[in-house]
Amino acid sequence: MKIIKDGGITSPKGFLASGIYAGIKRTEKPDLSIIYSERDAVAAGVFTTNKIKAAPVLVTQRQIKKGIARGVIINSGNANACTGKQGMADAELMVELTASAISSDPGKVFVASTGVIGEPMPMEKIRPAIKEAGARLSSDGGDNAAAAIMTTDTFLKKIAVRGKIGGKMVTVGGIAKGSGMICPDMATMLAFITTDAVTDRRTLSGLFKRAVEKSFNKITVDGDTSTNDMALCLANGMAGNSTLEGKELDRFQEMLDYVCYTLARMIVKDGEGATRLVEIRVKGARTSDEAEKTGFAVANSNLVKTALFAGDPNWGRIMAAIGYSGANIKEDKISISFDNVNLVRNGAGRGKDVEKKVAEVMRKREYSITIDLNVGTSYATVLTSDLSYDYVKINVAYRS
Amino acid sequence: MKIIKDGGITSPKGFLASGIYAGIKRTEKPDLSIIYSERDAVAAGVFTTNKIKAAPVLVTQRQIKKGIARGVIINSGNANACTGKQGMADAELMVELTASAISSDPGKVFVASTGVIGEPMPMEKIRPAIKEAGARLSSDGGDNAAAAIMTTDTFLKKIAVRGKIGGKMVTVGGIAKGSGMICPDMATMLAFITTDAVTDRRTLSGLFKRAVEKSFNKITVDGDTSTNDMALCLANGMAGNSTLEGKELDRFQEMLDYVCYTLARMIVKDGEGATRLVEIRVKGARTSDEAEKTGFAVANSNLVKTALFAGDPNWGRIMAAIGYSGANIKEDKISISFDNVNLVRNGAGRGKDVEKKVAEVMRKREYSITIDLNVGTSYATVLTSDLSYDYVKINVAYRS
Repeated sequence: MKIIKDGGITSPKGFLASGIYAGIKRTEKPDLSIIYSERDAVAAGVFTTNKIKAAPVLVTQRQIKKGIARGVIINSGNANACTGKQGMADAELMVELTASAISSDPGKVFVASTGVIGEPMPMEKIRPAIKEAGARLSSDGGDNAAAAIMTTDTFLKKIAVRGKIGGKMVTVGGIAKGSGMICPDMATMLAFITTDAVTDRRTLSGLFKRAVEKSFNKITVDGDTSTNDMALCLANGMAGNSTLEGKELDRFQEMLDYVCYTLARMIVKDGEGATRLVEIRVKGARTSDEAEKTGFAVANSNLVKTALFAGDPNWGRIMAAIGYSGANIKEDKISISFDNVNLVRNGAGRGKDVEKKVAEVMRKREYSITIDLNVGTSYATVLTSDLSYDYVKINVAYRS
Repeated sequence: MKIIKDGGITSPKGFLASGIYAGIKRTEKPDLSIIYSERDAVAAGVFTTNKIKAAPVLVTQRQIKKGIARGVIINSGNANACTGKQGMADAELMVELTASAISSDPGKVFVASTGVIGEPMPMEKIRPAIKEAGARLSSDGGDNAAAAIMTTDTFLKKIAVRGKIGGKMVTVGGIAKGSGMICPDMATMLAFITTDAVTDRRTLSGLFKRAVEKSFNKITVDGDTSTNDMALCLANGMAGNSTLEGKELDRFQEMLDYVCYTLARMIVKDGEGATRLVEIRVKGARTSDEAEKTGFAVANSNLVKTALFAGDPNWGRIMAAIGYSGANIKEDKISISFDNVNLVRNGAGRGKDVEKKVAEVMRKREYSITIDLNVGTSYATVLTSDLSYDYVKINVAYRS
């Protein structure tokens, strides 16, 4: 597997994209994009578990049952959520307009939105923009598409990898957008993955679910998702590889995993106001579920996150979060390390000198915190960022 | 029921208190206090559900089984949590030293601590301080005690009320300390309630649990509690009222409820960096549990809390939190009002003019948000504050 320099959503064969300014955002930044496949692609999707689902989520969930995609229309600036019947009609119209712009059956077009909740879609602006975005589709359009799905994101999130599978070069590419501070308060996460691999819909669905479970779902707690979260994967088969089986299937899974995990890391790294990317590795738990609970309790603690921002080895806050995580623990068995520096052993701190070494680790932009519960053999990894002044600033400013 | 002007923990008959600087805190502010009852008092307590419990919590949980109290020793500046066997020995020694200072059976002394986790107790400073605090006990010492339990609190939290019960004047007083942003990340909450009512241990326990359920438990989610949370209630019977029954019992419950709820409101109002106190009232839920879940999801959403700080009627963030709360809801039945201004009806916003009116409400220091789910008859009220720049500032600075 090789990383394609500057690769993205249009790196796999037969995928085109575009991103333009439709006028939905107040500032003149791209806000509408189309991803297009020259051939019918099988499709898999993972959607928000929020009980309040935006219109585009409902429409795409319905569309994806048919399992075939030719295009995806995405806008930022307006979430088309809590918009009632008009919102549904608007999302459906976006699908039809896109189908017309790319000369596709409307049944093969998906739609995704992100932005402010509760405001009507400015269809008078979207209508001509879809036509324009359709006309601008190009194999160089991946970055424009990546830019057009951004909201408070500060950098483009894209990646592509390739590798030989079944005697053919297969490519997997993707783009994504973040997401406030991600969990526990979401802010929409969107991810679009393209591949030219030959596969069937059922296989792709299984592969994609596993990849999402190990990546995007490790940055958002189940249930604590936005009204608009969506991750889609399209496979158009243009690589011409033979059926994915055994080792070949594993290698493709690895590529898909890598693309999803890389995008998930980028999302956390670009968490609103984030200055640190921290991998919380929990091991020695009684069950995977308890390992995950522990990881999320620590990862989502505002007190831990402000300590990460301060670079303060305040392990008491970590212990407290472990204590209320709901996992079965024994205080005097817990060990906590920052990268390779062991800070807590048998539930007790190892003193000021060690804290100084940990403070060194915490100066790094990226590091890991390993929590060994020492009561079992299960583990889980969760990604998080710190909580800075800028988080508040961004979220105070976002809408008004 | 009357509020006693400037009343507090020493307002009920027979209670004395003191608060002094022992040298545990780095800044020269009171950090050690004793609450003392001239007669044996029956005692009730509610403790943290965190699986990691500080030594003083473990010691007091053991002591309270005997049910009788003469004194409580409390320190701030050091939580005596995650301190292992030494921590337990220190907490036990604090009990013994206090028993000696107030000439009590050690079995009747409780201990509570709040502050930094994981550091050994400076017993060489605490030993002489307990003696001094015992010598300074006075009926004027309530405010000193209230001051000595503060950590990042910015104002004293105290209240006392009195009313005729069973022909006698009965008084209930209390002090409390806050608590970071409270939930979901706790930071210790301590509350000490005193009363001269005559009652038995079992009755007091029931009354106190109900009062806590409607007050302190409405600002902290079950399970998401600090290692040190503790609420104690002592009743020394010096009012000489007859047994609490029927209406008399209800009136006493009202007094206890009022004291606890007032202290809980003060805690939220003094939430770190808080500029707003907001009561989230959920009604029309299918069950009380779902009403509470909804309330806490909204109350704990960082995105909602930053919008409260910004004064931005961003109801989409409230809808999203309702959606991921886990409660059974129907999007198109939800109604949201700020004080008396209805902002969302049938799941849809009511437009910019209404938002302007809501923005007016949001300028107030205190207001309510009423969420009507319109799918049942159950309700719950939760208190919250906004999330400001200062929250981050305080928690970045707290330890280092």
